Amino acid sequence: MAKSQSVEQKLVGLADLVVEAARKKQDPQIEIPVRALSNVRFNERKRIIEMGKATQARTFFNLGMAKKFMQTVLVGDALAELQRQDLTTSLREIYYRTKHTLKDSNENTFDSQDESDPIIEDLEVTLASLREELHVAAEGRGSIVGNIVLVDDGDAIDCTRAGKSGHTVPSICEEPDIRIKRCGADFVLLVEKATQFNRLSEDKFWKRHNCVLLTGNGQPPRGVRRLCRRIHDEWRKPIHVLVDNDPWGYYIYSVVKQGSINLAFESQRMAIPNVRFIGLSSFDPEKHGLPRNVGIKLNDKDISRAKELMGYDWFQKKEWQREIKHMLASGLKYELDALANKDFRYLTTDYLPRKLKDKDWLD
Amino acid sequence: MAKSQSVEQKLVGLADLVVEAARKKQDPQIEIPVRALSNVRFNERKRIIEMGKATQARTFFNLGMAKKFMQTVLVGDALAELQRQDLTTSLREIYYRTKHTLKDSNENTFDSQDESDPIIEDLEVTLASLREELHVAAEGRGSIVGNIVLVDDGDAIDCTRAGKSGHTVPSICEEPDIRIKRCGADFVLLVEKATQFNRLSEDKFWKRHNCVLLTGNGQPPRGVRRLCRRIHDEWRKPIHVLVDNDPWGYYIYSVVKQGSINLAFESQRMAIPNVRFIGLSSFDPEKHGLPRNVGIKLNDKDISRAKELMGYDWFQKKEWQREIKHMLASGLKYELDALANKDFRYLTTDYLPRKLKDKDWLD
Repeated sequence: MAKSQSVEQKLVGLADLVVEAARKKQDPQIEIPVRALSNVRFNERKRIIEMGKATQARTFFNLGMAKKFMQTVLVGDALAELQRQDLTTSLREIYYRTKHTLKDSNENTFDSQDESDPIIEDLEVTLASLREELHVAAEGRGSIVGNIVLVDDGDAIDCTRAGKSGHTVPSICEEPDIRIKRCGADFVLLVEKATQFNRLSEDKFWKRHNCVLLTGNGQPPRGVRRLCRRIHDEWRKPIHVLVDNDPWGYYIYSVVKQGSINLAFESQRMAIPNVRFIGLSSFDPEKHGLPRNVGIKLNDKDISRAKELMGYDWFQKKEWQREIKHMLASGLKYELDALANKDFRYLTTDYLPRKLKDKDWLD
Repeated sequence: MAKSQSVEQKLVGLADLVVEAARKKQDPQIEIPVRALSNVRFNERKRIIEMGKATQARTFFNLGMAKKFMQTVLVGDALAELQRQDLTTSLREIYYRTKHTLKDSNENTFDSQDESDPIIEDLEVTLASLREELHVAAEGRGSIVGNIVLVDDGDAIDCTRAGKSGHTVPSICEEPDIRIKRCGADFVLLVEKATQFNRLSEDKFWKRHNCVLLTGNGQPPRGVRRLCRRIHDEWRKPIHVLVDNDPWGYYIYSVVKQGSINLAFESQRMAIPNVRFIGLSSFDPEKHGLPRNVGIKLNDKDISRAKELMGYDWFQKKEWQREIKHMLASGLKYELDALANKDFRYLTTDYLPRKLKDKDWLD
């Protein structure tokens, strides 16, 4: 469907399809893009993971699909309610809102959230609307400090005056609720874990190095990714990603960079192909003299996951093959926290300044 | 040890004990309060869970204790470093900082964080210093909006102008870093989950009902509990706790109210005996006409946990026995999210206003 329509119009359009089919005594049918590995590819030019064009029809007059069809219309109705009232909610509340027992039966519209979540994803791709545009917030929020001024629901938040702990990054970071009023920073440092965010914030690293610090407390939630993308697009700032040195850290970086296979549809609005991996690199422990005993032995899952990453199109650069091979050869992974072995402030005073000075990062 | 000494003085005092014993050619020995159920009791007068007075000696010239003794001194040293440099860090970084291989051996000072965490708890109780005073932050942060002005690291944060998502509540909420400059609210609403916090914040519930909204995104982390306690103590504000109706929700409430068995030592600084349980009550589904199909069947673990709660000293009031019995009799638990079944904004427009008007809460 066209991007220029409002989300509410698109949802109403969906209902119209059903009404029109009924009027014509036809089987109502919705074309839903296929969300499966078979319909995902890496776009070399755009450098993002994209969905292909395959679709599947969901029809009402089909015993195997009738329930799902009904569920799709119910969820669409709840989503239209959110649009009309200008409310946001969670996946879980959509489930509760649309759950009821069908009249004169023991049949529930939904028996668990496992049934409603995929329907919301179906509608996301069918209507070409991000979950945020559907007003459905994902779990997880982050924090931000540094040289940036956000406007959150009309309130200007100067993140150089937001204390040590910073402003909460909302689950949904879209216009018009969230605006980036000004960003005078030279770059954004997206930090995987709260511990390092706290260290850098306490040390006012953002002041000395004129940057913005962001964390999502683990795998960055959608709001944090979207805010990063918007700072990059609207204010042309480079984004550096700082993660543990393990396959999970590489994966976090790659999701921020080109999106994920599971949610390929969202890459076009979430992925930031220009982000850089600033560390931890598998070469850092030697460069920075970390003892082997603060490394953690790779387990079988780590090893097979690392090999899997090496096979992905987007890890084919020779620097990346070298990076991952070196981790496998060492047999060890390292957490960012391990830098504390040198000194509690090593990250702030030595590790990052040297990385930035030497431009010691991977693309 | 005396409360008036600085934390650094206490840590140095610990080292002095060892030096003095060595000088006298005696076995150095540290008296550590026992952290076990046997040494925990409910103080009826103060209405908090407290530690008793039992202690155990940890000595160096004892094969079974020598390693732990050495570890205690090492962790004490790292904690003193934090005090001298005025830094805060995480449990995990303390582990990395203190880990090394003993000279001319293959023996590590610590093999995993499971060894260093309990030592930090030992030192907490031995030195009568909260983890926050030792400058060790726990995981997890919360968010705050509403009629309160905090000073975080010198920056005044007016939480009526902190957007929808609010200020991040730090892991450590102690003076002098965090000050409560002003609180004009009538009460604090501590909300278990982010979904309801988002709903109430989006609806500006705090404005209409002149309150402060706080969430810890699940079991409230220490920072959120400490901030609540400080708002209660310093500004005499009532605290209302809003949780799911299940044994876990009751438990969250009870930890906020009188502390936990595992960390009984902290109750004196963290527990808030005056907090009220505003919901969800097991009587609410009927009062508010929630259909049974949005309830979730209690499983065996829920049932045994509920019975366990009914046995605790601090759940002996007849209202509480009635509350828990009613949940067991219904066979169902309810999430706050289930209120969305009525209407996405039911929590804001109906449920909470009626609760507040009727003073329909439990002590």
